[in-house]
Amino acid sequence: MTSIEELTRLIKKLPGMGEKSATRLAYHLIKTDSGYNKALGDAIATLKDKIHPCPICGCYTEGEICEYCNSPTRDKTLLCIVEESQDVVSISQSGIYNGLFHVLGGAINPLNGIGPDSLRFRELRSRIENGDFKEVIIATNPTEEGDTTALYIRQLLRDREELQLTRLASGLPIGGELGYADKLTLARSLRGRIKL
Amino acid sequence: MTSIEELTRLIKKLPGMGEKSATRLAYHLIKTDSGYNKALGDAIATLKDKIHPCPICGCYTEGEICEYCNSPTRDKTLLCIVEESQDVVSISQSGIYNGLFHVLGGAINPLNGIGPDSLRFRELRSRIENGDFKEVIIATNPTEEGDTTALYIRQLLRDREELQLTRLASGLPIGGELGYADKLTLARSLRGRIKL
Repeated sequence: MTSIEELTRLIKKLPGMGEKSATRLAYHLIKTDSGYNKALGDAIATLKDKIHPCPICGCYTEGEICEYCNSPTRDKTLLCIVEESQDVVSISQSGIYNGLFHVLGGAINPLNGIGPDSLRFRELRSRIENGDFKEVIIATNPTEEGDTTALYIRQLLRDREELQLTRLASGLPIGGELGYADKLTLARSLRGRIKL
Repeated sequence: MTSIEELTRLIKKLPGMGEKSATRLAYHLIKTDSGYNKALGDAIATLKDKIHPCPICGCYTEGEICEYCNSPTRDKTLLCIVEESQDVVSISQSGIYNGLFHVLGGAINPLNGIGPDSLRFRELRSRIENGDFKEVIIATNPTEEGDTTALYIRQLLRDREELQLTRLASGLPIGGELGYADKLTLARSLRGRIKL
């Protein structure tokens, strides 16, 4: 196998990469600058040596504790529960959330063998028992798995009556058009309609 | 910048990668096997050290001469001219071509500053003068640039009257439907219609 074929084979294992796009990418990398290739190759090869999950919230970090858990200015009464570490980045970039995070590491999906025990629920309970949280925002995906997980969290925390549980709003995406929205999204945006 | 942000920044420079897909890929690479990441990273970082253009046809190779030019079984009276090295792979994989190749390194595109001098036309002429070619298949892309380049090759070789010049057929893709074909493709497939 030549080095281009080998590179194509490896690229093809990435999500969303078919034979054609992998080949195209491999050939593209012949024409790029050597320095860029070395930087990209090195960043991929060493990524997992440099980062690890934050022992408190579970999001990926290079330091001992992540920047969110470590921040003195974030609101420690607010907790946002997400499925994946990258969701922390998305919510953080929205610019309107200044509380803490908790990464579950996925959503409950019995068909794929992911039960509550595979996710970071034990850590969640212990954080809530030992913390000062007033509101918990459930920000799992608006999918069947995400909804199941949200329901599970509600059950898990039902004895904490002082805690306000909320869920991210679902509905039409901003800039979207009614004609392009699917039935479920439309139904959700109707059920969750707000007073003007 | 954290190592994930740095990796995302580098991935974003690849063709077809936006902010979201680059972030998704970077986070995917946290979950993959370390051995895979090392292999992929290494393959990218060292790719350009291992390969170089074949001095005869211009396609990328690891050996001194490429496998096509070096092959004793390929038909040395047939020459297929393509724009890029990866086109050699595509045509080769079609399984019905057993001649030699010539890679131009692109197509004539005056707007992007790519004139005939930036492409491997000098090498093409000298190969044809010193070779035993009977047919030259022009396999540039069916785009404006590819058509211009095909026309240029016709001019370049007009004094070689013994040489048969052909061009890849354009028309409906196999498995495609008339309703989805664009006007230009339909026009070409009509103009190039064949007798049954």
